[in-house]
Amino acid sequence: MENQNKNILIDFEPISRRVYYLDKTFYEILLKINVPIQSLCGGSGTCGKCKILIQKGSEYLIPPTNDEQKLLSENDLANGWRLACRAKIDSTFLKSLEKKDKPQFRIFLPEDFLLEDFKILTSGAQKEINLNPTVKKIYLEVEKPSLEKPISDFERVLNAIKTYQNTQMCNESLYIDINLLNKLSRILRESDHKITITIWNEKEIIDVETGDLIQHNYGIAFDIGTTTIVGYLMNLNNGKIYSLASKLNQQTAYGEDLITRITYIRNHENGLEKLNAAVLEGLNDIIVKTCEKAKIQPSQIYEATVVGNSVMHHIFLGLNPINIGLSPYVPLVQKGLNYKAKGLDLNICHRGNVYSAPLVAGFVGADTMGVILSSKIEDEKELTLAIDIGTNGELVIGNQNILATGSCAAGSALEGAHIKDGMRAAAGAIERIKIEPDTLDVTYATIKNKKPIGICGSGLVDAIAEMLKAKIIMRSGNFNKNSIDNERLIRTDHKLEFVIAKKEETSIGREISLSQNDIRQMQMAKAAFYSGMRIILKKLKSINDSMDLDIKQIFLAGAFGNYIDKENTKFIGMIPDIPNEKIFQIGNAAGTGAQICLLNKDYRQTAQDLLNRIKYVEIATDKTFQREYAEAMYFPHLNLEYFPSLKEYTNIPKR
Amino acid sequence: MENQNKNILIDFEPISRRVYYLDKTFYEILLKINVPIQSLCGGSGTCGKCKILIQKGSEYLIPPTNDEQKLLSENDLANGWRLACRAKIDSTFLKSLEKKDKPQFRIFLPEDFLLEDFKILTSGAQKEINLNPTVKKIYLEVEKPSLEKPISDFERVLNAIKTYQNTQMCNESLYIDINLLNKLSRILRESDHKITITIWNEKEIIDVETGDLIQHNYGIAFDIGTTTIVGYLMNLNNGKIYSLASKLNQQTAYGEDLITRITYIRNHENGLEKLNAAVLEGLNDIIVKTCEKAKIQPSQIYEATVVGNSVMHHIFLGLNPINIGLSPYVPLVQKGLNYKAKGLDLNICHRGNVYSAPLVAGFVGADTMGVILSSKIEDEKELTLAIDIGTNGELVIGNQNILATGSCAAGSALEGAHIKDGMRAAAGAIERIKIEPDTLDVTYATIKNKKPIGICGSGLVDAIAEMLKAKIIMRSGNFNKNSIDNERLIRTDHKLEFVIAKKEETSIGREISLSQNDIRQMQMAKAAFYSGMRIILKKLKSINDSMDLDIKQIFLAGAFGNYIDKENTKFIGMIPDIPNEKIFQIGNAAGTGAQICLLNKDYRQTAQDLLNRIKYVEIATDKTFQREYAEAMYFPHLNLEYFPSLKEYTNIPKR
Repeated sequence: MENQNKNILIDFEPISRRVYYLDKTFYEILLKINVPIQSLCGGSGTCGKCKILIQKGSEYLIPPTNDEQKLLSENDLANGWRLACRAKIDSTFLKSLEKKDKPQFRIFLPEDFLLEDFKILTSGAQKEINLNPTVKKIYLEVEKPSLEKPISDFERVLNAIKTYQNTQMCNESLYIDINLLNKLSRILRESDHKITITIWNEKEIIDVETGDLIQHNYGIAFDIGTTTIVGYLMNLNNGKIYSLASKLNQQTAYGEDLITRITYIRNHENGLEKLNAAVLEGLNDIIVKTCEKAKIQPSQIYEATVVGNSVMHHIFLGLNPINIGLSPYVPLVQKGLNYKAKGLDLNICHRGNVYSAPLVAGFVGADTMGVILSSKIEDEKELTLAIDIGTNGELVIGNQNILATGSCAAGSALEGAHIKDGMRAAAGAIERIKIEPDTLDVTYATIKNKKPIGICGSGLVDAIAEMLKAKIIMRSGNFNKNSIDNERLIRTDHKLEFVIAKKEETSIGREISLSQNDIRQMQMAKAAFYSGMRIILKKLKSINDSMDLDIKQIFLAGAFGNYIDKENTKFIGMIPDIPNEKIFQIGNAAGTGAQICLLNKDYRQTAQDLLNRIKYVEIATDKTFQREYAEAMYFPHLNLEYFPSLKEYTNIPKR
Repeated sequence: MENQNKNILIDFEPISRRVYYLDKTFYEILLKINVPIQSLCGGSGTCGKCKILIQKGSEYLIPPTNDEQKLLSENDLANGWRLACRAKIDSTFLKSLEKKDKPQFRIFLPEDFLLEDFKILTSGAQKEINLNPTVKKIYLEVEKPSLEKPISDFERVLNAIKTYQNTQMCNESLYIDINLLNKLSRILRESDHKITITIWNEKEIIDVETGDLIQHNYGIAFDIGTTTIVGYLMNLNNGKIYSLASKLNQQTAYGEDLITRITYIRNHENGLEKLNAAVLEGLNDIIVKTCEKAKIQPSQIYEATVVGNSVMHHIFLGLNPINIGLSPYVPLVQKGLNYKAKGLDLNICHRGNVYSAPLVAGFVGADTMGVILSSKIEDEKELTLAIDIGTNGELVIGNQNILATGSCAAGSALEGAHIKDGMRAAAGAIERIKIEPDTLDVTYATIKNKKPIGICGSGLVDAIAEMLKAKIIMRSGNFNKNSIDNERLIRTDHKLEFVIAKKEETSIGREISLSQNDIRQMQMAKAAFYSGMRIILKKLKSINDSMDLDIKQIFLAGAFGNYIDKENTKFIGMIPDIPNEKIFQIGNAAGTGAQICLLNKDYRQTAQDLLNRIKYVEIATDKTFQREYAEAMYFPHLNLEYFPSLKEYTNIPKR
């Protein structure tokens, strides 16, 4: 992106998008990064719809313009509200900045602001999603029956549909359930034969209402993560997100990771039922929450789409996931599925449909399918690597010609687990770290500027990279005991640790540090990704030796992928050595996949077609895996030739 | 039929088919009248499969042949068992008969005997039904999963189907419910991956079983009458009827006729639920009974087809029939419907399908559609009238070019209701009557030769015809008081009655007689049919004046239609005056319609297509109806020109 200043960070909340400064209004920046925003006047400062709240850094902006003074109340202005199309960072402030200054801005986007056309990001270019939802609502004025034309209630409704539009929607096999048929008969007479019907997929009438209610046509897209569930409530007529909500997956009470949960199911009668009820509680809470925000009824949500890893997928549907955990790790079913909401106990319209996206394999789930769908990797010209970073890292490598995936057990180091002072990305987490190579002085930033209480994933990546550059650790990952003598290198239980935040700086009553074991955990995680990628590439090579298998482009998906420092991620050898401008942070691409499946059913067919195209590579059982993994344990790799641009490594000792 | 001797009647039980004597073996007679029978040797007397029991008249048969002595046990022979392909009536006995002798034969066909290919009767010619059921079973040996091919359980099954046969059955949208998917996964592993799957309509997998069970593929066809329910259990692989059972419709507890039942629903909370439960009790009893006879499990019945009048149709499905009883008398839905057995509480395979045939109109139901389908009236060259005789008489008039229906309120006189000594066709009912014109002596036959207790429909038709021929009544239906003076004409409460069976002959302690009111009821019934037919013909004439609208052929459907005397039915003016050989008694044509829909799904599309072709005529609201009805009250009609062949009428006074 042009005119970036990497010293200035702007965080947009609540959508958690972080961008570098651009010399543009916030409205223009948001357009640039494809955040759907609402504006009636197109950013000309006349409609006043693009109100935003500057939570941090308001003092560095240009003063409120005339337009803003006209369109915002005094109270609003006093509380930090601005118009996104007018407010921008003051250029005189920028000029006054010294090199060490790293100002941060935090900007809150109100819910209303986000209600806009939905687009997806593909390799930096935005793409409009054509609307083609499965659910369509039609307002009908139905003919009344007479002795001359004693046609049944349902057949008169079918005739009205035919008259309304010459559509495939109306054929003799259009299904309607018994209860709705009885309701149809009653509502016809109560409504003077003026009704709204809701048709799913041109196959079934799923609702009948009195009068004209075609505007109220909603769907919800879910991303069921092992830890977190997110739901996006959307209007299917216009593709806008009306509200969103997220929640902890209550299944964590039965185990942090997937294998623990599968074990729980194996060892407990009704284990599956309990875990299924836990995830449904979360989904139904999100339904209530998003509906309250958007002021609609859950019964007006006619379809839900769901992505999630294979185990979450199975448990949500009530399918037994045990065989996913046993060799050869097969799911019960892979294809995209449609089930009635009622049968799944999802509290949207009873007759509404729940679509769950297909699974690529046992360990490459519908979430990865969501990443592929939303990143459109199969349309890329250049060979592209997409990584969804989590406890299980999913890798996708592909372009117009090939498409392969694999899964690697990255461990949960990046989520803060098994790290002495690790934590999730929450207030007080150290998320950015810089180490002065000469003095080993550490500067850091925490989330919400709270006193530090731990280090989150992006902080860990920074810490390792900076410790390497400062030669505190060697390429083997071992502490460089011989070359350093600094108060920050301490010994606890006879083991070395490097202090990131001193005791007096933290709010936990002791220092925050990285141990040798912490570094190992990070090595294992990054080695898993890099060796996984290597194995997939080798497999592709073995299929077609003439293929050009250089990664030219990288998509980093997921919340972690969005916050991580690209340069440092590359520096520790987690991803291949390609220019930063070819590395894209694509956000919650899995969730975006669920959304596009909701708005356009053609993507469901695409997903199904991709199933047949995607080559699944079983990484861990590959016979070269152990060697690849061991070599990738080095920073950035045993073979420095793989990382030609990382010149600093010439000074860092190997072991 | 050739070589008929109308003095000799042969009743085949339990199928209640009555035929006149033919100079043939019983095997040949049964073939002739299209009763499906079992024989391995094709009637050559070598397989011994065609065992029948002679219940009445065995003394008039030829003695057991050598073949029979070889193939039947002594005990069998002693008890009256014969081989149908060998036994016939003795010609010497025939020659010894005097004109007044009217011997009867009753022959019982064991259940096994009937297990044969299913055919339908159309204007006297039999037609093979091609098998094309919706339910297909496939035995599969499914590939096991491996690390090299870690394909999901369901996708491996789909692949096996594709390998098995290149069929439309296997496409990505093949549905399977969650519970069955879990079962599939379990059964695959329990059965060493050798399974039988059951597919409905190339759309859904509805069962998964261990091993090869493709032979066990059953369906059941139901005819839900207002009074009686009949069920036919059939094997869908070979089209054979495996067993049948019938039962009183328990709804009669809530009202004898349809209007009473609709009124009950309107006036009682849960009225619909109660009537629905009543009919389901009957259907589920029949399922148990037929399964026991055929030694199969109800869960192996994968589909049920249902015909019935519109009110029975609605109540069975749980649809509110109230609007059928209110002008303009529209049903809630007309088209053929498919619902899950479980949702309807029908105790076949839970995931099995229930198909209910389409309704022509509020008062012309799926039973009439069944009559049309099985009689193939729409393929006839000659203009044909089909009458399904019941409380509501349904009329169908059509040929290759036109097709029209209407319903007339015939009343339940023909079922014995509102008739002083009327009764249903049961043991002790007078079913045949002859009156000597000179002496007015009455001879009669009763069902099962019991002492008479009343008169059933066919007896009533005979009685009226004979009373006319004997000039006991006049063409107006009034007793001919001036011309007769006979002990059989008695007065009760100052009203005339004609005695059919004298007090000493009956088992009810008094005489059985016909009153003036009884004659009126019969006049109203026959007038309803004839005038109904006239109204439909007039309507067709008004549409196309050049059309030839002479009825050339008549199909009499239903149990009553099967037992009635053709000549006398014509004589009283209930049906048009055409030669007897053009009048066909086609049995329970409605039930046959349900059976052919079960065996070949193409007929369901035919039914749907017919819906658009059939012209429904509202008879009672036609402005000429009153006059037509009044004229048809005369015997045979006010206008004798309509019945040119009934020469006897020249002697019968008009009023």
